[in-house]
Amino acid sequence: MSKIDGKRLLKDLHELRSIGAHRSGVHRPTFSPQDMKARHWLAARLTEAGLTPEIDGIGNVIGRGGGDSRRLLIGSHLETQPYAGWLDGAMGVVYGLEIARALGRGIDVGAWADEEGHYGSFLGSRSFCGLVDEAELDAAHNKHDGTPLRDALQRAGLAGRPRAVIDPARYIGYLEAHIEQGADLEDSGRRLGVVTSIVGSRNFRIGFEGVQNHAGTTRMAIRRDAGVALVRLAAAIDRRFPHVAGPRSVWTIGRISLDPGASSIIPGRAEMLFQFRDTDPAVLDRLSSELDTLIAEAAKGPCRVTVEKMPVSQPTAMDAEFQDVLVRAAERQAPGQVERMPSGAGHDAQILATRIPAAMLFVPSIGGISHHWAEDTKEDDIVLGCAVLADAATELLRIE
Amino acid sequence: MSKIDGKRLLKDLHELRSIGAHRSGVHRPTFSPQDMKARHWLAARLTEAGLTPEIDGIGNVIGRGGGDSRRLLIGSHLETQPYAGWLDGAMGVVYGLEIARALGRGIDVGAWADEEGHYGSFLGSRSFCGLVDEAELDAAHNKHDGTPLRDALQRAGLAGRPRAVIDPARYIGYLEAHIEQGADLEDSGRRLGVVTSIVGSRNFRIGFEGVQNHAGTTRMAIRRDAGVALVRLAAAIDRRFPHVAGPRSVWTIGRISLDPGASSIIPGRAEMLFQFRDTDPAVLDRLSSELDTLIAEAAKGPCRVTVEKMPVSQPTAMDAEFQDVLVRAAERQAPGQVERMPSGAGHDAQILATRIPAAMLFVPSIGGISHHWAEDTKEDDIVLGCAVLADAATELLRIE
Repeated sequence: MSKIDGKRLLKDLHELRSIGAHRSGVHRPTFSPQDMKARHWLAARLTEAGLTPEIDGIGNVIGRGGGDSRRLLIGSHLETQPYAGWLDGAMGVVYGLEIARALGRGIDVGAWADEEGHYGSFLGSRSFCGLVDEAELDAAHNKHDGTPLRDALQRAGLAGRPRAVIDPARYIGYLEAHIEQGADLEDSGRRLGVVTSIVGSRNFRIGFEGVQNHAGTTRMAIRRDAGVALVRLAAAIDRRFPHVAGPRSVWTIGRISLDPGASSIIPGRAEMLFQFRDTDPAVLDRLSSELDTLIAEAAKGPCRVTVEKMPVSQPTAMDAEFQDVLVRAAERQAPGQVERMPSGAGHDAQILATRIPAAMLFVPSIGGISHHWAEDTKEDDIVLGCAVLADAATELLRIE
Repeated sequence: MSKIDGKRLLKDLHELRSIGAHRSGVHRPTFSPQDMKARHWLAARLTEAGLTPEIDGIGNVIGRGGGDSRRLLIGSHLETQPYAGWLDGAMGVVYGLEIARALGRGIDVGAWADEEGHYGSFLGSRSFCGLVDEAELDAAHNKHDGTPLRDALQRAGLAGRPRAVIDPARYIGYLEAHIEQGADLEDSGRRLGVVTSIVGSRNFRIGFEGVQNHAGTTRMAIRRDAGVALVRLAAAIDRRFPHVAGPRSVWTIGRISLDPGASSIIPGRAEMLFQFRDTDPAVLDRLSSELDTLIAEAAKGPCRVTVEKMPVSQPTAMDAEFQDVLVRAAERQAPGQVERMPSGAGHDAQILATRIPAAMLFVPSIGGISHHWAEDTKEDDIVLGCAVLADAATELLRIE
């Protein structure tokens, strides 16, 4: 098989890391100047690799090769969470680039815009799969600062460009490599994970409306404190969810705000962002039902409770044959170092899987850290992951 | 006795309300342009009333009359909480102005800067009582936007002015009228409250430090979620405090923040502002001790807990003789309409009480609302309160 060049791979990753560098990580939010610089950097590398690059109307960077035979698509994303890690997304994209160079044929590369959800939910890969209409783009805005997506596309020089859409007949399937973002590989002492299924998530914005008042003069008995109502629901979730969750369910309150948020004012409004994830739809339903029960109990209190259901993602199984190919390649490159595992994080692969067979390979995250600038992976593991993915790609292209 | 002019009183209050008007309330933060406009407006009214006004180096507006006999000081504050009510502070100041006009002698008027604590704790009245040194002013900054107090004083045209300090021998004592900011008067159907004691408060900034990580990939068992640690302590306070509190104790979590505050990120840091109040120092000590216990329990969890003790205020009894004078005046003006009550809010009177006898009169707050633009009091009650305070002032000046 064609060998990947580990030094070239790492050199590219470190070059990409310098675009938006923040401490040992990267700050490269979607459509920021540094994000666009990274997209143009990739387009130039794709050209050097003999592919024809396109940056489309949603910012997807797609490198296509010539020839008539069916191809493999390999990719991930380039933008990052705020002040986050250097490998989350970038590694999977540069694997695609390196494998295209190493194999010299059969590989297209994709960098899907906004996987990190600054403006929406998997906008780039969903656009590529034909799942985004213009009305959704009209309505989308940056969740941190409210910038309309259309304005951001304009400033990024992308307004008016067509959005590329997948031709499923062109592809054997899709491969995506990613850092694990958890500590299961590290804990088990293994270096490679083959993803069985990507978790589904349910997301909620839960609001409480009480009565704002003076924190010194309003007796406890007559208060309608929205913050207390929130704390009671949050504590009930913390108490009850372990009893209804599956063994790998996770649930998180990521944000709490009290309004107006002053020490001497009883909060009149409060809000939390709550989500849970599991690979089993039945478990997700059970958790949803428990949440409904707890919210109904909360609504008996003195504050009004509102629940906004946010974008949902369904659990997505990875292609079984592709999984086997990845496991065989891993055993060839690093015997005894692979395990099958679910993905607790969402990935573009779950979107591509709606159109073509898709599979994912994980490499270890040091200390399980991700979505933080301290995120890292050993260089040996980065190179090994690319070799395994290249090996699997070779097998899949030969099958074809 | 000299009669106050209710129409003139209301006309002044409505004029003052127009400075920084926000819906039916007022936005007049300390040293903002609108706050300074209000201070200059008051100075002009004091001149018209035959007093000599001074705006001192901390923004206190003091109107002094001539003559050798000992005087009464009447006042309150002019600035407001953000987007708050039109009477909180302003009413007590304009009572002073109106009573100075009505009695024609014996009254000084004070508007104490920053009672609402945008830059510190009772900076104006504490400065007037000789309790603030230059180092405190050097260190003080706006708690909302971080502006150094020195910069704000410069912009307000107050830098370099001397700060006025009380001559206790000049005064019989201090009277302050205020809206109740609670619903006790309304609930009891009475129109006047004579304050027995002002509550003390203890304030805490409680921080939690865990490990920020990905909300999808980090198993529940290994998380060190700072938000969960905060919620557990908040819920424990909610559960335990009713068992150790006094009948009028109040406690409030006014602010919660999770960092970084995104739906898919486990919070690495969390913080809450917590305070409690009571008129009884023994109850405050008991609540402090309970909080210590709960924090010690919280510290056994996976997150580090830090506690910053913020400015404390001690419970302050009002002068017993002054209270009796106020009750007698209230019974003369509105028989059966007065009750004695503690103040759940802090007031400048608790600072002035460290130097001269001090007492407070409350008028009802409609619906108990305050620190909100909807705060209001019936005009009849506003006028009645001023008449009672004028009557009490007359009696106190005659005693002298």
